[in-house]
Amino acid sequence: MKKKLMILAATCLALSVFSGPSAADEGMWLFTDPPSKLLKDKYGFDVKDAWLEHVQKSCVKFGRSGSSSLVSSNGLVMTNHHVGFGQLYKLSTPERNLLEEGFYAATRDEELQCDDLEMKVLWSIEDVTDDVVSAGKSADTTAGADSAKRKRIAEIEKQAKERTGLTSDVVTLFHGARYHLYQYKRYTDIRLVMAPEGLAAHFGGDTDNFEYPRYCIDVSFFRIYENGKPLQPKHHLSWSTSGARDGELTFIVGHPARTERMFTLEHLKFLRDVKFPTILKRLWRREVQLLNFSARSKEQERMARSDLGGVRNSRKAFTGMLAGALDPNIWQAKQSAEWQLRLAVDANPEYASEWGDAWARVAQAQQKHAEIYERYSALAGRRTVIRSDLFAIARNIVRLADELPKPNGERLSEYSDASLESLYLRLYSPAPIHPKLEINQIESGLSYLAETFGADDLLVRSALAGQSPRARAASLVRHTKLADVDERKRLVEGGADAVRASDDPMIALAALLDPETRMLRKIYEDEVESVEHDAYARIAAAQFAIQGANTYPDATFTLRLAFGPVMGYTESGVEIPPFTELGGLYERHEARGGLDPFKLPERWLKAKSTLDLNTPYNFVSTADIIGGNSGSPVINRKGEVVGIVFDGNIQSLVWDIAYTDHEARAVSVDSRGIIEVLRNVYHADALANELVGR
Amino acid sequence: MKKKLMILAATCLALSVFSGPSAADEGMWLFTDPPSKLLKDKYGFDVKDAWLEHVQKSCVKFGRSGSSSLVSSNGLVMTNHHVGFGQLYKLSTPERNLLEEGFYAATRDEELQCDDLEMKVLWSIEDVTDDVVSAGKSADTTAGADSAKRKRIAEIEKQAKERTGLTSDVVTLFHGARYHLYQYKRYTDIRLVMAPEGLAAHFGGDTDNFEYPRYCIDVSFFRIYENGKPLQPKHHLSWSTSGARDGELTFIVGHPARTERMFTLEHLKFLRDVKFPTILKRLWRREVQLLNFSARSKEQERMARSDLGGVRNSRKAFTGMLAGALDPNIWQAKQSAEWQLRLAVDANPEYASEWGDAWARVAQAQQKHAEIYERYSALAGRRTVIRSDLFAIARNIVRLADELPKPNGERLSEYSDASLESLYLRLYSPAPIHPKLEINQIESGLSYLAETFGADDLLVRSALAGQSPRARAASLVRHTKLADVDERKRLVEGGADAVRASDDPMIALAALLDPETRMLRKIYEDEVESVEHDAYARIAAAQFAIQGANTYPDATFTLRLAFGPVMGYTESGVEIPPFTELGGLYERHEARGGLDPFKLPERWLKAKSTLDLNTPYNFVSTADIIGGNSGSPVINRKGEVVGIVFDGNIQSLVWDIAYTDHEARAVSVDSRGIIEVLRNVYHADALANELVGR
Repeated sequence: MKKKLMILAATCLALSVFSGPSAADEGMWLFTDPPSKLLKDKYGFDVKDAWLEHVQKSCVKFGRSGSSSLVSSNGLVMTNHHVGFGQLYKLSTPERNLLEEGFYAATRDEELQCDDLEMKVLWSIEDVTDDVVSAGKSADTTAGADSAKRKRIAEIEKQAKERTGLTSDVVTLFHGARYHLYQYKRYTDIRLVMAPEGLAAHFGGDTDNFEYPRYCIDVSFFRIYENGKPLQPKHHLSWSTSGARDGELTFIVGHPARTERMFTLEHLKFLRDVKFPTILKRLWRREVQLLNFSARSKEQERMARSDLGGVRNSRKAFTGMLAGALDPNIWQAKQSAEWQLRLAVDANPEYASEWGDAWARVAQAQQKHAEIYERYSALAGRRTVIRSDLFAIARNIVRLADELPKPNGERLSEYSDASLESLYLRLYSPAPIHPKLEINQIESGLSYLAETFGADDLLVRSALAGQSPRARAASLVRHTKLADVDERKRLVEGGADAVRASDDPMIALAALLDPETRMLRKIYEDEVESVEHDAYARIAAAQFAIQGANTYPDATFTLRLAFGPVMGYTESGVEIPPFTELGGLYERHEARGGLDPFKLPERWLKAKSTLDLNTPYNFVSTADIIGGNSGSPVINRKGEVVGIVFDGNIQSLVWDIAYTDHEARAVSVDSRGIIEVLRNVYHADALANELVGR
Repeated sequence: MKKKLMILAATCLALSVFSGPSAADEGMWLFTDPPSKLLKDKYGFDVKDAWLEHVQKSCVKFGRSGSSSLVSSNGLVMTNHHVGFGQLYKLSTPERNLLEEGFYAATRDEELQCDDLEMKVLWSIEDVTDDVVSAGKSADTTAGADSAKRKRIAEIEKQAKERTGLTSDVVTLFHGARYHLYQYKRYTDIRLVMAPEGLAAHFGGDTDNFEYPRYCIDVSFFRIYENGKPLQPKHHLSWSTSGARDGELTFIVGHPARTERMFTLEHLKFLRDVKFPTILKRLWRREVQLLNFSARSKEQERMARSDLGGVRNSRKAFTGMLAGALDPNIWQAKQSAEWQLRLAVDANPEYASEWGDAWARVAQAQQKHAEIYERYSALAGRRTVIRSDLFAIARNIVRLADELPKPNGERLSEYSDASLESLYLRLYSPAPIHPKLEINQIESGLSYLAETFGADDLLVRSALAGQSPRARAASLVRHTKLADVDERKRLVEGGADAVRASDDPMIALAALLDPETRMLRKIYEDEVESVEHDAYARIAAAQFAIQGANTYPDATFTLRLAFGPVMGYTESGVEIPPFTELGGLYERHEARGGLDPFKLPERWLKAKSTLDLNTPYNFVSTADIIGGNSGSPVINRKGEVVGIVFDGNIQSLVWDIAYTDHEARAVSVDSRGIIEVLRNVYHADALANELVGR
């Protein structure tokens, strides 16, 4: 059956649409269930447990949404420039713009302390599926079951943390079929070591983003400290000075954020017709607004750069995802796969009675989801449309006051005991807040609510409090005291009484929006998410029974192993070689007249004559990645670093819903290019020596 | 009552919300009903009939949407650079980019012929209200009445054209209360004389657009030819070399496109909650897409420049209009005005029975309008979301085949006999069509339909024909023959048979969309527009009866007279003087590091030392303008040109729904700055001499 699907799809593009992997280099594999047979059969590679453990413990989750790895015995961590961007942004001042100038600490003393960065190394994995599932067994409804499971998860996490001292997180896999307890070593004393100039790291800017060939030194280096000294990690990756050859098998190990490959047809339609268009609508709007904000002055451009970069990156990614969802080839392949699985289920009466209605249940959940999506995602998602730091702080303070008095298992999950240390790190961050940008963000958010729900909507009216969006935003930012970290602590420590007694207008706004926000969250959890968990657990069971269980779940922001050779491709008849070289960077600079975003910093122009221009710089491979993988090391069979992934090409954006190796590639910086540039552009020999282990 | 309203509004801003004018310099007055008393009382100026006729016949409607004026006895026409932009764009080639380089024809032989430009001079105005209204009298429904009126209008236009040979157009005023027959002299042999570089014309670009102080030479010059010779017009404006003084009364005469000041509260809510957000959503999206298209290469940037400029200008305008509609001060003033008028109507039983239900009828029309708006405006408005030249051509060909066989009065109004010569001029324009941009436009349009109505929508499915938006767009553009003007003529001349026999895919797409498009148009006309015409005719009658009839109707893209002195303003405590000077241009160039959009062309940098830097360059006045006024001459009491209006400041954008002189200003280029720059930057002495009449 799988073969047939492949043939069908291959008429247009080699496309795998099962959650089960194809013969292609597909998959973001769990470390507890690696693609051993596949790697052995196709590449003659034996995945050993020791190899897996070494790699796992050398990888680092960077902050909330990035990947990175330990690359020296002195706690040196390598990630992308665009992953470290937020920290570089916060460490910048009008006098010292790290994003423009770059940074290098030649000695440890010069390293810059990061205020609110945490890094986590995955230390153990435990399957707690039975424990979690049995907690939901006695409930009458899927909503009740999910609520009981959430409660049990909070208990498991809390107990694990108490037992080991490690940060503990239960991960939901296969959208509800499996539950794994992940425990992490957590570090918060992190210092910046090196970052190139933004122009070199993101050479080609938004224009070249998600494109190939590329010429980017998208790396930055940090160092983990423990007890005031550089961490001496048990595991770290060693460096390959010879890089990878064309065709050589490589691995990418990191934290892919989210894929939606297991989704049913009706669920994909929700993405295509509701979610992607809604998100894009907001991104287009915000991009234009931020471009305008930035154009007013150099200083405003600096303030908005982090937000603007994020918005443009997401806009390009969702554009590609929507294009994929509108591609009839992908659609046809998805449809064949689903229909064949459902036919196999229906053909077996036992299967049919256990799993047969799961697809209809997902469809029903999507109807509800579509109904509430605009309002839910605007107000109650992880990031509301009011993308202001001050408002996010206020919302956390208001909710902490409500949630902390409750038993651990009954809180909103992000306020469970296991989540609090990360939350406080962010909440009490002394990172600067820019009032002008805050006003712009809040004005934009309030206006969005009015544009979307109408200015007469009750919630909109209360949020605006009789003012225009602009006037209201200015007044909120002018009068709130939440820019002061001590004031935040005072309110959190004072609990519900302090919050109630506060006359801070931002607190009042967060409190005003909270009841409807919570109601939307509850509807989502009870009528969408819990139905999905139940249905996908059953669809996964059907897949395991009919197609085998050695497969990988959709991405969940947790550590995964991907693999694939270095390999070029052919696009519209043009052959794209796998590697670019440093010389190509200068050619492109000249071809585009040295104009932003193809402008090279002065230091680079000066260094040209001292560089070996034939050094491999960027390269592509077939390994299966997605957003969140940014900063993941690319390693060879020996576990040595041959590069660092920083992007996928435009054809890879469809990987959100289906893997294909037809033109789609992961894009990495070559380990040889990194060393060449560190030594000859930045004269960072100490850092280069530390990497190569000299 | 009017006084009371003003007091109420004055608590926040000086705001007039009646369609009737206030004591402020409000109004876009009809030439048949000028503000004689107001001008006499406030400025001691007697408006004479001869003055009116001279000014009216010196003004020129430029193409479909711009204003301009005759400024020499040899048919020289002055308009804005941004009004002439479309022509400059069409006359540009990769080798000769007029938008970048500018243009000057020192002799008549060097002037460049425009392919598809028409200019019209308003020659006579006749009130045909009784004729039109009586045609609708016998109908039972508003839809039937409107249909009968449209038929009668087509007859009046046709008969007038046959009688006089002049282009004839019946204009609907006060949204249905009055009908005037406008007859124009029409010219189509137009040649380009002079245009500055885009960087100088639009100095400050999108950043400074709708801002003040400003430093733009936003002018261009064309010449009308008649029988192969420069037109010797009966009327033209003479030039003032001394410009206007601070505080001097000036007039702006041009073709304001559309205002919505007479709209009822429920109608304004439709604008605020439905129309403005929908339009902005599309503009944000398209702006980002065009920026991306432009970033790919210099050549693509040139192709997209006209579209991108239009989109950014509209986006900024609608942002300001939405902000105005969300301003509670404006809202409160509008509400007081409407409630007071309605109270006065209700207090008189005769009034109440004739006009009392008009507001409820408008509200009912808005409900229907909101219901169909997204689909109607995407598919059936004047500009569909498929903003492609080739598609627009196909739609006209398909519709001409259906419409031409019908009697004149029963056609869609844009295909009436009186409209055909302008339509053919555009349809058979040999202006170049750029396939890459066309593909981008069609892909964007098709994807918009899928994003908005879902990819399973029947119309969307047929439009996509089983392909992705990108593939479908590429295939349509590759296979259509409509880039060839002869093929267009062949199809139009062949009529329905030729269209039916055609296998052109663009024709097929237009034919496929046409039935639903026509249905939406019919619903709009019958259930929205006709109800509005009926209701606003009655609301206007109430206003005339209660507040007096010497007032001005909302803008209708026809010739209007506005007035107001040159006057600075105070913004956030900062005094903004009325004039800027040429020296300020160079200061701003330097302050922004000479970076685009604050970059001056080489010629300008060289000319600096030869210029009188104290020459007045741009100035502001209180005259009441709106989009469409661009290119209107600013004249003094003697009818001499003291400037040319090219923008309003950001505070003026609310003028769409309400006039205020609180900070809001029209922005013009000074006649002295124009001459100084023509002589010393462009060495265009022949042109300067022609202007000043030497």
